[in-house]
Amino acid sequence: MRTVFWENDQLKMIDQRRLPATFELAAYQDYRQVAQAIREMVVRGAPAIGAAAAFGLALAARQSKSTSSQELGRDLEEAATLLKASRPTAVNLSWAVDRILRRTNEPGLSASQRRQSILAEAQRLADEDVEINKRMAEHGASLIENGDTIIHHCNTGALATVDWGTALGANRMAHEQGKRVHVLIDETRPRLQGARLTAWELQQYNIPYEIISDGMAGYFLRSGEASKVFFGADRIAANGDVANKVGTYMLALAAFDNRVPAYSVAPTSTIDLALRDGGQIPIEERDGGEVLEIQFRGERVTPDGARARNPAFDITPNRLVTAIVTENGIVYPPFSSNLPEFVLP
Amino acid sequence: MRTVFWENDQLKMIDQRRLPATFELAAYQDYRQVAQAIREMVVRGAPAIGAAAAFGLALAARQSKSTSSQELGRDLEEAATLLKASRPTAVNLSWAVDRILRRTNEPGLSASQRRQSILAEAQRLADEDVEINKRMAEHGASLIENGDTIIHHCNTGALATVDWGTALGANRMAHEQGKRVHVLIDETRPRLQGARLTAWELQQYNIPYEIISDGMAGYFLRSGEASKVFFGADRIAANGDVANKVGTYMLALAAFDNRVPAYSVAPTSTIDLALRDGGQIPIEERDGGEVLEIQFRGERVTPDGARARNPAFDITPNRLVTAIVTENGIVYPPFSSNLPEFVLP
Repeated sequence: MRTVFWENDQLKMIDQRRLPATFELAAYQDYRQVAQAIREMVVRGAPAIGAAAAFGLALAARQSKSTSSQELGRDLEEAATLLKASRPTAVNLSWAVDRILRRTNEPGLSASQRRQSILAEAQRLADEDVEINKRMAEHGASLIENGDTIIHHCNTGALATVDWGTALGANRMAHEQGKRVHVLIDETRPRLQGARLTAWELQQYNIPYEIISDGMAGYFLRSGEASKVFFGADRIAANGDVANKVGTYMLALAAFDNRVPAYSVAPTSTIDLALRDGGQIPIEERDGGEVLEIQFRGERVTPDGARARNPAFDITPNRLVTAIVTENGIVYPPFSSNLPEFVLP
Repeated sequence: MRTVFWENDQLKMIDQRRLPATFELAAYQDYRQVAQAIREMVVRGAPAIGAAAAFGLALAARQSKSTSSQELGRDLEEAATLLKASRPTAVNLSWAVDRILRRTNEPGLSASQRRQSILAEAQRLADEDVEINKRMAEHGASLIENGDTIIHHCNTGALATVDWGTALGANRMAHEQGKRVHVLIDETRPRLQGARLTAWELQQYNIPYEIISDGMAGYFLRSGEASKVFFGADRIAANGDVANKVGTYMLALAAFDNRVPAYSVAPTSTIDLALRDGGQIPIEERDGGEVLEIQFRGERVTPDGARARNPAFDITPNRLVTAIVTENGIVYPPFSSNLPEFVLP
């Protein structure tokens, strides 16, 4: 089953907030609810939210009462603005929405023709995501050696994409190719995507893993037990600086300090050549409740009145990134000169 | 109230496993139960477990039925072995037990004189701990400037010592001196000593703080918001390598990468000149359940059958440590030549 798909005139998505305890599908007929679902992380992962926004635009087209193509265009622009604003860091959201608007903007299309065209284009984007992920996974798997122990941050598997996955997809591909891999999963506080989603996925793929808390990665890198580091990306600047789930920067530092390669695996839709460096990438700060609402052995952890900060992403400077794996191949430094050849117009 | 104290022929300790939800005192009359309590982290923090072991030895002396000083000595050796083995990384445990045995080993003492002498010596060690902590806090506070935002790892406050605290004691002293300080508390997975204990303490001292997840420290160091990093130590090797709560190494790396000073605050009883470097310090690996037994918004996080790793400490190499703050002053690199002058025989 895909993480994000269209069925019976609805957008359906696996509700990732309660996995692995509860497996539930959420269904949407209103693009505003899709934007809300993206904000609340029913769906997360840069490629998955891109696909969700694409189908959200298809819903907006259906919801619009407009009979002229021009009026429909205005309604779509309004929906596009809302969908793109639902989360600021991952550029895939804007990329997906803009691509659909651009490709379905032929002059002479009637409103109903454009509605059909938008749905078809959203479906194409979702289908392509699966195919792109498989190509990325193959390139990524070529970097994995038999016997590797891989530290993986956050969730970059099938759940973070339409299907298959980016960084975790590379691990899965290596496993399917018969390589012996062991994954140390960063639990990835505060939302615990590693402990919840990556562990659940690896269990299904029958890939051996162990969960670690995020601060333990340095221990396993220094001890020599971990031989590779893999993570995804939410946005990559033109110089190769990588915005990704908070904690990635410290993980990449620890890999670098121990001469362990650190790979960012992401589709070219995540690369934002318009931004010179990571300093220009907006970082979402989410509600502190995500840090505070945790229990240990059934009891609350933080004192009454506690406050928290919650930046959801951080920037890993390009000097700490060994290579960026895309669907078009593996990009090595210097990224500023090498990245553009991989990003097709 | 002290964290560890002697009252009515019993060792009493604040049970730190359930704070801040429940404040309870635990009382002990059997040294074996004290060793168990140290293992299960009823009491934690290097200086606090040193004091607990000292009183544990006083209990062992009382429990011994021996009438000769020599027989009592054998019973004490047995108790000492058990107490020292309760946790392997913090050297304060061995230091406290050995100091008591050594100082109460005068020839000519009767068994009952030695029993009294052991209790008096344990009490002296506990009293000294408070006084040493205050001296450390004053040295540490001299490094803190008005307006500093300090990242603090784990709990190194009154709860980690008999009273007052080491690294957190320095923060508290700066606050009492009228300096404006803000603390970003690493929640410190897996046992969450930061989110539970440090937040609880700072609330009582009225020091402003915010809890962050461990992987966020890099974000705040890179953004320039955090201006100092403070942590304690469980054992410091002769070359200044610091064994401390897991996650310290990655925190110190991120501080170093952003030219933010990182201070380890610890009594000289934590310095183990017998060990050349951090590679010789034994690192305790605890049960993986501590990583897995977490709930988010009331629901379990990890899938059934999940496995975890759980090293409780890591080694921060001396090159990442700006200075080591002891009760005898602030030690700067090169630590190999400078540390010995601060460790009095």
